[in-house]
Amino acid sequence: MKFREFSDLDSVARLKELAEKPCDLTKPGIIDSGRIERYVVTTAGFDFLFATQRIDDEVLDNLQNLADEAGLVDKFLAMKGGGFLNRIEGVESENRRVLHTACRDIFSSTPLDLEATSQATEQLSRLRLFLEDIEKGSIVNHRGETFTTIIQVGIGGSDLGPRALYLALKRYQLPGRSARFISNVDPDDAAQVLANVDLSRTLINVVSKSGTTLETLTNEHLVLSALDRAGLDSSRHLIAVTGAGSPMDDPGKYLASFHMFDYIGGRYSATSMVGGVTLGFALGYDAFVEILQGAHAIDVAAEEKNIRNNIPLLMALLGVWNRNFLRHGTVAVLPYSQALERFPAHLQQCDMESNGKSVSRNGQQVGYRTGPIVWGEPGTNGQHAFYQLLHQGTTVVPAEFIGFRHSQYERDITVQNTTSQEKLLANMLAQSLALAQGKQHDNPNKRFAGNRPNTVLISDRLDPFTMGGLLALYENKIVFQGFCWNINSFDQEGVQLGKVLANTLLGQLGAVNQGEPGPLDRESAEYVLLNRAGCLKMS
Amino acid sequence: MKFREFSDLDSVARLKELAEKPCDLTKPGIIDSGRIERYVVTTAGFDFLFATQRIDDEVLDNLQNLADEAGLVDKFLAMKGGGFLNRIEGVESENRRVLHTACRDIFSSTPLDLEATSQATEQLSRLRLFLEDIEKGSIVNHRGETFTTIIQVGIGGSDLGPRALYLALKRYQLPGRSARFISNVDPDDAAQVLANVDLSRTLINVVSKSGTTLETLTNEHLVLSALDRAGLDSSRHLIAVTGAGSPMDDPGKYLASFHMFDYIGGRYSATSMVGGVTLGFALGYDAFVEILQGAHAIDVAAEEKNIRNNIPLLMALLGVWNRNFLRHGTVAVLPYSQALERFPAHLQQCDMESNGKSVSRNGQQVGYRTGPIVWGEPGTNGQHAFYQLLHQGTTVVPAEFIGFRHSQYERDITVQNTTSQEKLLANMLAQSLALAQGKQHDNPNKRFAGNRPNTVLISDRLDPFTMGGLLALYENKIVFQGFCWNINSFDQEGVQLGKVLANTLLGQLGAVNQGEPGPLDRESAEYVLLNRAGCLKMS
Repeated sequence: MKFREFSDLDSVARLKELAEKPCDLTKPGIIDSGRIERYVVTTAGFDFLFATQRIDDEVLDNLQNLADEAGLVDKFLAMKGGGFLNRIEGVESENRRVLHTACRDIFSSTPLDLEATSQATEQLSRLRLFLEDIEKGSIVNHRGETFTTIIQVGIGGSDLGPRALYLALKRYQLPGRSARFISNVDPDDAAQVLANVDLSRTLINVVSKSGTTLETLTNEHLVLSALDRAGLDSSRHLIAVTGAGSPMDDPGKYLASFHMFDYIGGRYSATSMVGGVTLGFALGYDAFVEILQGAHAIDVAAEEKNIRNNIPLLMALLGVWNRNFLRHGTVAVLPYSQALERFPAHLQQCDMESNGKSVSRNGQQVGYRTGPIVWGEPGTNGQHAFYQLLHQGTTVVPAEFIGFRHSQYERDITVQNTTSQEKLLANMLAQSLALAQGKQHDNPNKRFAGNRPNTVLISDRLDPFTMGGLLALYENKIVFQGFCWNINSFDQEGVQLGKVLANTLLGQLGAVNQGEPGPLDRESAEYVLLNRAGCLKMS
Repeated sequence: MKFREFSDLDSVARLKELAEKPCDLTKPGIIDSGRIERYVVTTAGFDFLFATQRIDDEVLDNLQNLADEAGLVDKFLAMKGGGFLNRIEGVESENRRVLHTACRDIFSSTPLDLEATSQATEQLSRLRLFLEDIEKGSIVNHRGETFTTIIQVGIGGSDLGPRALYLALKRYQLPGRSARFISNVDPDDAAQVLANVDLSRTLINVVSKSGTTLETLTNEHLVLSALDRAGLDSSRHLIAVTGAGSPMDDPGKYLASFHMFDYIGGRYSATSMVGGVTLGFALGYDAFVEILQGAHAIDVAAEEKNIRNNIPLLMALLGVWNRNFLRHGTVAVLPYSQALERFPAHLQQCDMESNGKSVSRNGQQVGYRTGPIVWGEPGTNGQHAFYQLLHQGTTVVPAEFIGFRHSQYERDITVQNTTSQEKLLANMLAQSLALAQGKQHDNPNKRFAGNRPNTVLISDRLDPFTMGGLLALYENKIVFQGFCWNINSFDQEGVQLGKVLANTLLGQLGAVNQGEPGPLDRESAEYVLLNRAGCLKMS
């Protein structure tokens, strides 16, 4: 497999030329019926509309060349097949396989990595049995009552994806079941959650791949002491999801233990047991399987080499066009669905932790931009908040709209001949057009420059299958972009320095709490900072 | 009052030169005890540490010159005194006063605008009486029971600020009281909230300054029909906050009505009745007054002309340094407090709707960057999500840390000699240093470039007084930046085009629902888009 620097590709040079005169979306009549019909891809229940990007057929052809030249689909297939793609050549790196897709490839008649899919199937069977035991009352609390609540204790990848999916699909939760999440080392996070549940009927699901995450272990302690105060036996309440062989892999301590494997990165782990246990408990086993099936449908669709037929690949390339050629630094993800309120936060991790890198797979400092800043909030709320800047600010923000034709609850009302759901969608489509076309006006303050690139992704209804597909669309988009920029999207060395420094500061605080002087020189930046921030006199 | 373009100021030219060689924070020993002690401002319970910005005394002196030359404090005083600062010269504009500070200036012995402060005082007295009536049981439901819940129905400025403050201060809510919020026109938003409250004991607080906000009126309808289905008399449940004289200003329809005035913009309205009614109900009248007092303390501190003694002014100028001179397009707001989970979303509106502008107060297209993209999530969660990009990405993101020495619930646990709160703060300070200093390493993938500018704002505890101060710090920062860029931070013309287009699309959908052809040409972009998105066959 060849790993060439992005800047060395022939198509990149050509795209640079084309970017000097990108399509002008404000030209009257340019966004016509022909363009709208031509620039649509339909896959696995999703329609992807991209007529409001600053591209034309020539740009698309060259983005196709870029995809081919960089071997994006081949690399994706290599990844799914168990290739060692978490790796940087010539230096020490994690050197692992990347197989989150195996959690979904279990539905394939010819799975690409037999070992990983059989491990996924085994964990899934264990989850099914565990959930059946809860259902039929063989797993109960000390009073013989069923469990109603699950608290997932985890952070980062062990929190954001499962939380975003749970909130997105809360509509479908089983009667009498719900989930809560504790992530932050801020003790108020746990206090707030624990103050609002009946602990006696709550399962505590501690999730840490490494089994050593500071926040998670501290919060496990906090929850254990709350169980203790409530006179509850923790062994009846505690379950674990962790890497096989991690310090937390201790079945004696937990009512049940589930495994994840070193070939699944935290930010790609929502469809492994990291998401499965909590989602399965709250939404039911079948709903979790539907999520996996939806993701699988997209994983298969992502193998298509023609960018005009492959939504995640096209999303990736349009993103590269906006980032590297039109030079936009951020992407706004704007779901017109309140249920997706935390999906942008999940994408912040999945995208920015994957592609916020400066070193190529060849161990070279890259000479081009990599992953953008990803942010966003649900519409229509955002329209009343930050859209002012999107329309009239001095910085152009590419936008990715996400919408659904039907609501989840079907509790709608017709006002002035249209339903709320219709108002929601009309607003989304109107924003897409307004950002692209702009508007002239005599009053400069009422002028809209337009040429704000955006896309619309639309599907029927946000249900478990569709949510799985949406998750996989973005996971695969991010992976394609990482291959394109020739970076390793699967490690996260950038989080290490902060950890090391935090431990230094904690060593000082811990020593002071013990009445000892502590390791830090009193003239050092670390000591003075702690002191000046007032942290040394806290206790 | 002189309104000069930012690019015409002498200090701007000088700062441009200085920005060619900004302070190198990675130089060994540069962030020493002297620098840390020198670059701190302490005001009204806040310590603001800025040694980790790429500045030196010469840059600071020139930022002071910029503040003086642009007359930032004079303009702020003119605003507080009732000047017509919501205005653009030579073209049609809103031409209004800007007096959100009057809601707090009521504590001053010499209020700067007597009319506005007396209106604020009057509304506050009416709120006190209303809350007393609820407390003593003269306002009850049809069964004579007290109200336990309030649902605020509003969007944008009538939602984000009050919601962020409520979540931040939930710890202090009165026993048996709570608040919920419905904002999105997505019908699932209301359905989800209504499915989880006892409507018979719920007050519905409909908030819209104009009294015409589509989302809010639609959601009011939805809530009314839910009350109706539950057999409840809406006149016992419905209250309103709206502009005097708006279509919603109809005391006959509402159990109680409160006013806001045209001199308070939505995004600056959290300390008016827009926040007061819900926060007063949930947290108590006294807590709301403490919020106002905290904000007042900062409003007074913001009058200081020396940037080294004025936190919001210095925050504004450091932001301008990063935006216009070091050319960074975004700002990450990173509160190390889970309670502040929605504060960044509020700031997105307050900042980006205020300063996402391209036309100066003189009606000219600006030739310089204005407001940045504001985003962020609480730490330590973010550390396990997007901090990879902050440390090793190809785009530099200035960061604003916010922390507190004590937790709200005081439910902490000591693990390895330190409490969770200490771990939280140690992580925040470690990140500040790590971003600034960076680190060399033989392995390029373990290298940290450093020179990522950031600041740390720290206070004792997130209580109502401190929350009011924090809110006002950012409001005033944003206003100072708007004056600096010579833009009108108080209008929002950029939201109009989307509204107009949405109404066009809704006209078509409404007609189709009535069995009529509708106004749109079938070849028009609007019609084809609606059709291709599958919206015309929804019903």
